[in-house]
Amino acid sequence: MGNPCDTQMKLVAGAAGYVLEDVPHLTDYLPDLPSYPNPLQDNPAYSVVKQYFVNEDDTVTQKIVVHKDSPRGVHFRRAGPRQRVYFESDEVHACIVTCGGLCPGLNTVIREIVCGLYHMYGVRKILGIDGGYRGFYAKNTVTLTPKFVNDIHKRGGTILGTSRGGHDTSKIVDSIQDRGINQVLHLIFQEIRRRGLKVAVAGIPKTIDNDIPVIDKSFGFDTAVEEAQRAINAAHVEAGSIENGIGLVKLMGRYSGFITMYATLASRDVDCCLIPESPFYLEGRGGLYEFIEKRLKENGHMVIVIAEGAGQDLLSESLQSMGQQDASGNKLLQDVGLWISHRIKEHFSKKRMPINLKYIDPTYMIRAIPSIASDNVYCTLLAHSAVHGAMAGYTGFIVGPVNGRHAYIPFNRIIEKQNKVVITDRMWARLLSSTNQPSFLNPRDISEAKKEDQPATGLLDGENCKDRKSMTEDDPCIS
Amino acid sequence: MGNPCDTQMKLVAGAAGYVLEDVPHLTDYLPDLPSYPNPLQDNPAYSVVKQYFVNEDDTVTQKIVVHKDSPRGVHFRRAGPRQRVYFESDEVHACIVTCGGLCPGLNTVIREIVCGLYHMYGVRKILGIDGGYRGFYAKNTVTLTPKFVNDIHKRGGTILGTSRGGHDTSKIVDSIQDRGINQVLHLIFQEIRRRGLKVAVAGIPKTIDNDIPVIDKSFGFDTAVEEAQRAINAAHVEAGSIENGIGLVKLMGRYSGFITMYATLASRDVDCCLIPESPFYLEGRGGLYEFIEKRLKENGHMVIVIAEGAGQDLLSESLQSMGQQDASGNKLLQDVGLWISHRIKEHFSKKRMPINLKYIDPTYMIRAIPSIASDNVYCTLLAHSAVHGAMAGYTGFIVGPVNGRHAYIPFNRIIEKQNKVVITDRMWARLLSSTNQPSFLNPRDISEAKKEDQPATGLLDGENCKDRKSMTEDDPCIS
Amino acid sequence: MGNPCDTQMKLVAGAAGYVLEDVPHLTDYLPDLPSYPNPLQDNPAYSVVKQYFVNEDDTVTQKIVVHKDSPRGVHFRRAGPRQRVYFESDEVHACIVTCGGLCPGLNTVIREIVCGLYHMYGVRKILGIDGGYRGFYAKNTVTLTPKFVNDIHKRGGTILGTSRGGHDTSKIVDSIQDRGINQVLHLIFQEIRRRGLKVAVAGIPKTIDNDIPVIDKSFGFDTAVEEAQRAINAAHVEAGSIENGIGLVKLMGRYSGFITMYATLASRDVDCCLIPESPFYLEGRGGLYEFIEKRLKENGHMVIVIAEGAGQDLLSESLQSMGQQDASGNKLLQDVGLWISHRIKEHFSKKRMPINLKYIDPTYMIRAIPSIASDNVYCTLLAHSAVHGAMAGYTGFIVGPVNGRHAYIPFNRIIEKQNKVVITDRMWARLLSSTNQPSFLNPRDISEAKKEDQPATGLLDGENCKDRKSMTEDDPCIS
Amino acid sequence: MGNPCDTQMKLVAGAAGYVLEDVPHLTDYLPDLPSYPNPLQDNPAYSVVKQYFVNEDDTVTQKIVVHKDSPRGVHFRRAGPRQRVYFESDEVHACIVTCGGLCPGLNTVIREIVCGLYHMYGVRKILGIDGGYRGFYAKNTVTLTPKFVNDIHKRGGTILGTSRGGHDTSKIVDSIQDRGINQVLHLIFQEIRRRGLKVAVAGIPKTIDNDIPVIDKSFGFDTAVEEAQRAINAAHVEAGSIENGIGLVKLMGRYSGFITMYATLASRDVDCCLIPESPFYLEGRGGLYEFIEKRLKENGHMVIVIAEGAGQDLLSESLQSMGQQDASGNKLLQDVGLWISHRIKEHFSKKRMPINLKYIDPTYMIRAIPSIASDNVYCTLLAHSAVHGAMAGYTGFIVGPVNGRHAYIPFNRIIEKQNKVVITDRMWARLLSSTNQPSFLNPRDISEAKKEDQPATGLLDGENCKDRKSMTEDDPCIS
Repeated sequence: MGNPCDTQMKLVAGAAGYVLEDVPHLTDYLPDLPSYPNPLQDNPAYSVVKQYFVNEDDTVTQKIVVHKDSPRGVHFRRAGPRQRVYFESDEVHACIVTCGGLCPGLNTVIREIVCGLYHMYGVRKILGIDGGYRGFYAKNTVTLTPKFVNDIHKRGGTILGTSRGGHDTSKIVDSIQDRGINQVLHLIFQEIRRRGLKVAVAGIPKTIDNDIPVIDKSFGFDTAVEEAQRAINAAHVEAGSIENGIGLVKLMGRYSGFITMYATLASRDVDCCLIPESPFYLEGRGGLYEFIEKRLKENGHMVIVIAEGAGQDLLSESLQSMGQQDASGNKLLQDVGLWISHRIKEHFSKKRMPINLKYIDPTYMIRAIPSIASDNVYCTLLAHSAVHGAMAGYTGFIVGPVNGRHAYIPFNRIIEKQNKVVITDRMWARLLSSTNQPSFLNPRDISEAKKEDQPATGLLDGENCKDRKSMTEDDPCIS
Repeated sequence: MGNPCDTQMKLVAGAAGYVLEDVPHLTDYLPDLPSYPNPLQDNPAYSVVKQYFVNEDDTVTQKIVVHKDSPRGVHFRRAGPRQRVYFESDEVHACIVTCGGLCPGLNTVIREIVCGLYHMYGVRKILGIDGGYRGFYAKNTVTLTPKFVNDIHKRGGTILGTSRGGHDTSKIVDSIQDRGINQVLHLIFQEIRRRGLKVAVAGIPKTIDNDIPVIDKSFGFDTAVEEAQRAINAAHVEAGSIENGIGLVKLMGRYSGFITMYATLASRDVDCCLIPESPFYLEGRGGLYEFIEKRLKENGHMVIVIAEGAGQDLLSESLQSMGQQDASGNKLLQDVGLWISHRIKEHFSKKRMPINLKYIDPTYMIRAIPSIASDNVYCTLLAHSAVHGAMAGYTGFIVGPVNGRHAYIPFNRIIEKQNKVVITDRMWARLLSSTNQPSFLNPRDISEAKKEDQPATGLLDGENCKDRKSMTEDDPCIS
Repeated sequence: MGNPCDTQMKLVAGAAGYVLEDVPHLTDYLPDLPSYPNPLQDNPAYSVVKQYFVNEDDTVTQKIVVHKDSPRGVHFRRAGPRQRVYFESDEVHACIVTCGGLCPGLNTVIREIVCGLYHMYGVRKILGIDGGYRGFYAKNTVTLTPKFVNDIHKRGGTILGTSRGGHDTSKIVDSIQDRGINQVLHLIFQEIRRRGLKVAVAGIPKTIDNDIPVIDKSFGFDTAVEEAQRAINAAHVEAGSIENGIGLVKLMGRYSGFITMYATLASRDVDCCLIPESPFYLEGRGGLYEFIEKRLKENGHMVIVIAEGAGQDLLSESLQSMGQQDASGNKLLQDVGLWISHRIKEHFSKKRMPINLKYIDPTYMIRAIPSIASDNVYCTLLAHSAVHGAMAGYTGFIVGPVNGRHAYIPFNRIIEKQNKVVITDRMWARLLSSTNQPSFLNPRDISEAKKEDQPATGLLDGENCKDRKSMTEDDPCIS
Repeated sequence: MGNPCDTQMKLVAGAAGYVLEDVPHLTDYLPDLPSYPNPLQDNPAYSVVKQYFVNEDDTVTQKIVVHKDSPRGVHFRRAGPRQRVYFESDEVHACIVTCGGLCPGLNTVIREIVCGLYHMYGVRKILGIDGGYRGFYAKNTVTLTPKFVNDIHKRGGTILGTSRGGHDTSKIVDSIQDRGINQVLHLIFQEIRRRGLKVAVAGIPKTIDNDIPVIDKSFGFDTAVEEAQRAINAAHVEAGSIENGIGLVKLMGRYSGFITMYATLASRDVDCCLIPESPFYLEGRGGLYEFIEKRLKENGHMVIVIAEGAGQDLLSESLQSMGQQDASGNKLLQDVGLWISHRIKEHFSKKRMPINLKYIDPTYMIRAIPSIASDNVYCTLLAHSAVHGAMAGYTGFIVGPVNGRHAYIPFNRIIEKQNKVVITDRMWARLLSSTNQPSFLNPRDISEAKKEDQPATGLLDGENCKDRKSMTEDDPCIS
């Protein structure tokens, strides 16, 4: 696959330090493309709307905490329906594909793309690609209609199926060309542009881990945090019912600890929260073993929540099993939950201090549930924004809220960085304060951590992005 | 009670049309008040935080959809801990009161105010006022400690009790003075200021209906929308299991239809959504009866969701029962759900078209549940923001997120207006499109509706405020 | 409709006071009917079963608490597959109909009848009757296959639809004859017998109220009691959050208080439980008002649970509205919950004792949910027993567990009596002890109540039957 | 510990083959013990009860499927209050202990023993033993009152704590003697009898696995089956969303497959159910691998549910790790779920057939939840039966329903055998038919299986007992 980042940035400057990071448009490389009036203006449901369409100039500011005289900073193009569209309704041949791991809300997004295209724009040709990217060339497609998708939002998973791992971009674009598809997912954007095709490529970022930069949060995240409460409650009950009981819960989060952090903050039954962003160690003063022993002596029991990507350095050292790759090209992460359970048991067994550790891994039970109501509404907005953008001829973009307003964001902005918990932010301090756990940091770590950070964006109160070391094709988008 | 709006606005202007609507500070009327270093800087949990304190100059922009050269507009003071506080830890004598109807998350807010004051600021004297405002002078108080509030967030309701209806402001302030309380709820701010007391008054807006202006959303709202799904599902099943089945659900919302609108969008099983902001009529062409008949003939069954404050003009006409007041000073709203059930049955009985209407009122089952995880985290942030603000000597303010960032908002900003569903906004059009219901509007209504609106703020995609005709003391705040 | 009770009882006597109350068989009036080997014996899933078939002589004892020398009492024919069947697989033309109000588990029963006939007996012609009894002649039928019913048990309600009220038995039997249906529901049994048709009529008793005599419990009952907990919890939270708070919950139960009693016992948050079987009064010494006042003074709040059929005499007196009939021929019961709310408010308003009463009616939310796992398994057994019985040529029977063993019970046994809570039984005493409520009985009532009762049968620990005064066609069966 | 089985059986014979297996009574070895009138007769809640007390002669029949002339078989003494008690209220010093793994309903049983003793018998001295058997001599006790236990049934786990593993019976009985306890749990019955103490020992059998013989079902079982549905649903969604998806769920059941079987029957989404009672094999014709391949080729995905004790022979062979013991003295069962996941992945990897297996172990999430309503009521009845029995001087017994009636069962009856799924019973055939899985049996296995079985007892439709090879002290009782 080509490097999706070689798209040139479209930057527009304004007064008082204003910058717009714009998204590509089909007319960038097909300058003579005809446009048409947006059929939405004849839709009775929209007849009462004051302003049918988003103003061409509307942009959404990324910077929201400002000073009286500070520069205005980066903005994104506001999402929403446009005065003119670049597809006629009966010309559109859209397709939807889902890939990567399951995430609550996938079916809602599929449903709302179909209903949005159908009811708002009169589109009748909508295909589902079966089984992820490879489905473009290796499987039959599914015809999607409002009737077909009517109840799917009440089910978990994805009706389209998904897959992980490699695929052949060229074959995908061949298939798109051969089938006459002209609205499609984002990862093949570069190839589509290279071939000069009139194909709008729109992405809806999908990751249960909430590690997408720029946007406020990813869909399914609230559902995941909600469902994680069950596992934490169970760990709390198990731990509290036996002497020196330890309830250990592993939650999702390969590279970021958002689910783990928010599940901890929401539950208040957690004694120790371990995430990838905050290194920790086991032995010696200030280490995890010491903290466990202390907490057990104080309370008789404790709950530990660990993100799947936490402590990878320790695990690697311990197992010398680095460098393996799973089918999707991600580093194969050994189960840190099983590993740390084993190590804790071993340690206290050597110390002849009897403990009772119960390990719970609710990952698949969380991923597979239908989304909660707030995620359902959120998925609707994402789907509609994507539909409006594709109809308006934008391409190579993803949709998502920036400070609460839906915007179109250039695709390279979300793949060059990855959202992470900022451990020098007050949210993490709030967590440390609520669990009363050690920070596992020495003064040098702290001063380094402070240096690394950048201005905050994101979820509720502000976390920011760090360089994404190993961008992969996994867990990307649906469209 | 005095008019809380006679506080002079504290306005600060900046470059490019920047305006700050600031909140009062104790030093406004106690200019010589000493200040102290914030004890948070010695808290180990916060030792890793890059910047302990919110920059004095940080403000949060209300305007987020902007043009290249548009004026910057209104800003609010950013919430968070300050370098200097105006209370010593052992001097603080805080009290918490809850009033108005139940709302999921009340106990979480109480818990986090107590834990925040205790753990972040070392405060030890925290009182709970029992049974709402009247509890200040008519009941004993409850001593609140972290241990006492440890598990309360898992229960619905409020451990402090609540009440509706009148109270004597002067007696409340007497009680505050007599008890030596110096951090307290907001409604008595004017009286406190008049007496020149060193009492910080902080409010956390509480309304399950989400009708608070300026802030993004009120706590408990997501929980309410989630729980409302149960009732809508039941209505859908009941309606679908019998010929000409009509499932009718009444949801909360006296003056605004947010819960009803979001519950409808999340469910997708609703055929007709009726809210206070969108007038409708029963008889004749384009009326509700006609639509019901049409939908029953097409589908054999339907679901109607109605906000408790919808159709009040029809109901009043029909019952000539206007002008009554409930104990809290609100207009006594007759149960619109029972009323409209009756009318629909009557109509189709006269037409000799047999229908089967099942009426569900889940109000108390929704209000009484514990909050979901996302509301739990949200309540934590609200509570902490209030604590930081009070310690920093701000007063007469409420806390809440503005475009995702927590801010301090002058109290008069939230009582002079009320947030409402804007029926000329695209969110309502999206709903009409999804239910495919009539708008019940004639062309003249539409043009008037369009005139009334103002620039959008608020929940997800933008609703705005209208004049609040009858501000009452009910459903206000906890602090 | 003919009188279904004019079937002569088939009684068989045995040693030591043994009596078998047998069910009719097609050969009773079609003596030369040929029989065939049961195809189940060739089913690989059953190949390991020790004994393919229920022994012809197996009977289930109704009397289970016995003395050393007591007579053995009444028995019923054991349910299960028989050696010989009276239908060939490709000859069977079965139909299923549901009627009366919704009950959790209806779809599970439908699913399992279809799958049972299909997989166990190779039956391919299975019809669903749409919209209850009238659907036989007034509507199209639905073809039912295992694929069609595959996921229906996860939904509440009934996919077949239901109806209440009158129907024309003769037209139903005409339709059965015309369509060539030969396995069908029970209410038309007499007519079928009169015409000498080879039609097996099997019933599965359906009432969420659990008021069917002889059998241990009716399906959906456990689900209903489970779901009722939500409403009681909400009432408890609402009541406890306000001074003199009263949470009032109305539950199902027109003639019997089983749901109310079990929901109260399971919850332990109820202060007063009112059921049809236990008369009560409002005013004066020992009355409800006095008890409410006492409990509020002790605890500050209370929860009352009332069955829909409780206090009908008081309500009638109060409203003088007796004698009305609903469409199903049942006495129209006015909403006792609304009525008693009104009366309680009125009483305390006159006494100038302010109370806060919250009324919750969760009826439709309870009826409409999918059944819980234990009801799912139970519905499977009921459906299979019915299928086995019909294939074996039995007719005019209902199925259900008697002391844990599934049996075939003559239809007239369940319509001549109705199961009721026995208020002189220890289960009710247990409830009174747990709520600590008054019995509302004077000594004369007690001695009369004691006289009325008969030996206990039924749910868990023993309730018994009383004469059913007004047997109706409503809430009967599915088959 | 002494052998609890050396108690002589108390057998009583009656007419027509009637046998009563009676329980010990304190007067068996303390013949001159005085008795007193039961205080229940003065309890107002019981004033309406027709018959305050269970008739001395009431017994419950175990045999319920009978023929006209069959012998009457085994009976047990009916549970319930007696005319005379052998303890005065203020003399009683009861204690409660819980041990073994968690089970939903433990707290409900504790609550109801306390409330039953307190409210029905006026007992005021009730101790909780902390942390299982060892708590008698190694820990402080907890004073239990109705107020203390008021809300505990809403929490999972056990407020008393539990433990596994060895303890010193003699020290326990010393502690009982020293503390003056006179109503207590069962395992030390022999020692108590040897010492001639006036201590009534009553047990409530506790095992989530439902493998207790004689009684209908164990408490918490319905809750466990209900909660298991979540995991099976998740497995179904995960499997169905990816090509060749396999969802694998491990459920509780060391020696018996009841939870697994009932969860499978209730769900209907399971393709293969593996339990300890039904041996299976992996390789070759008719093996598991072959079935998996076949089902994946037919459907594209499948769900497997496995009891923790299934396939132990294969696992042992494979791991040669037999003979290890866990702290409670049970054979250490390696995690069969992880093991079989590994083997299946390995097999299909070798065959180069890509599969996607997701393994879910919900064990601790199931054990830790509060009990559902039906289990709550059931726990109440168990607790009250135990209290009545102990007050009446019975000892060395357990309580439980036999065919729906609560009875007292000699302790040795439940330890000499263990309830198991009878794979030659129709319930298992029903399961095989619903999953359409192979029986994994060859003709010789089948004929042997058929030989082993004995007359059915138990849950719903009849499963029976096999010799319990390794009776242990684990998972026994609370009292």
